Amino acid sequence: MNYKLLKSQILYRGKVFDHQVDEIEYDSGNIGIREIAFHPGGAVVVPIKDDGKIILVKQYRYPFKKTLIELPAGKLDKNEDPLTCAVRELEEETGYKARDFIKLGAIYTAPGYCTEILHIYKAVGLTQGNHNREEGEHGMELFELTQEEIVTMILSGEINDAKTIAGIFYLQKTKS
Amino acid sequence: MNYKLLKSQILYRGKVFDHQVDEIEYDSGNIGIREIAFHPGGAVVVPIKDDGKIILVKQYRYPFKKTLIELPAGKLDKNEDPLTCAVRELEEETGYKARDFIKLGAIYTAPGYCTEILHIYKAVGLTQGNHNREEGEHGMELFELTQEEIVTMILSGEINDAKTIAGIFYLQKTKS
Repeated sequence: MNYKLLKSQILYRGKVFDHQVDEIEYDSGNIGIREIAFHPGGAVVVPIKDDGKIILVKQYRYPFKKTLIELPAGKLDKNEDPLTCAVRELEEETGYKARDFIKLGAIYTAPGYCTEILHIYKAVGLTQGNHNREEGEHGMELFELTQEEIVTMILSGEINDAKTIAGIFYLQKTKS
Repeated sequence: MNYKLLKSQILYRGKVFDHQVDEIEYDSGNIGIREIAFHPGGAVVVPIKDDGKIILVKQYRYPFKKTLIELPAGKLDKNEDPLTCAVRELEEETGYKARDFIKLGAIYTAPGYCTEILHIYKAVGLTQGNHNREEGEHGMELFELTQEEIVTMILSGEINDAKTIAGIFYLQKTKS
């Protein structure tokens, strides 16, 4: 796309994302506004137990004022690499450690206005430790479900989180 | 989750999303900050030609400063219902009209901080009309790919848009 940046302004520096508004001029001379949520990105884990069941978490999601069932996931800390984040979030949210993390893919959650990229890993060889949740994550419940049960819950609308659907998609399509 | 809302402030009313910051008090007495991107939601279309090929669009995505391959999609206009949005966006972005739209599901793109819900429809019985793109959508390219080609491109990382992955997941898992 051909345009010229006229003005760029960060309106709010958030804990989760910064809100930037750019003013651009198209070749036609028309002016456009572009809003961007600058998000650090994160990691998503598909934790698979030796019996094949997948561990999910049910947690309260403030924007919707309700609980959702999702794969364990979290934001990258400053300068953190995605694999380190995946290892950390798996243990924080579920209490499990994994022997191996295998990269499945990376998704852009909302590329029209947000820079968030989520790196998705399969985690196998799980052993149980202690979870260490952040405040606001207490009350998180763990679920163990088969792939078939998860697919059924996606189709029924009981699971509707995009990263969880993508994680199951990659898992089922990736030969390993 | 148990908390009390202390303060809620909209910091910026955007064209794409509003940025709200809430201050909450947990039962413990600790204070938390919650940032929300209020997004109106949108519709995503999986347009399937009579020969089984799926129409995708390649478009410039400003937050990433590059082009991405995605299913046709767009934001809900004020008070617009998702199906009307799907019909409109399919024609605007691809020039196609469809005989039937079948709801496949709805996804939460970033439930930790964003209210966006995307409603996903399968569109069949396509006939070609004229597309009518918004400024900034010129230069959009159309692609026709088989389901197998799309899956291959998701696994190779050539397609990494979450709504597109979810759309293909629903399409493949839904009996119709």
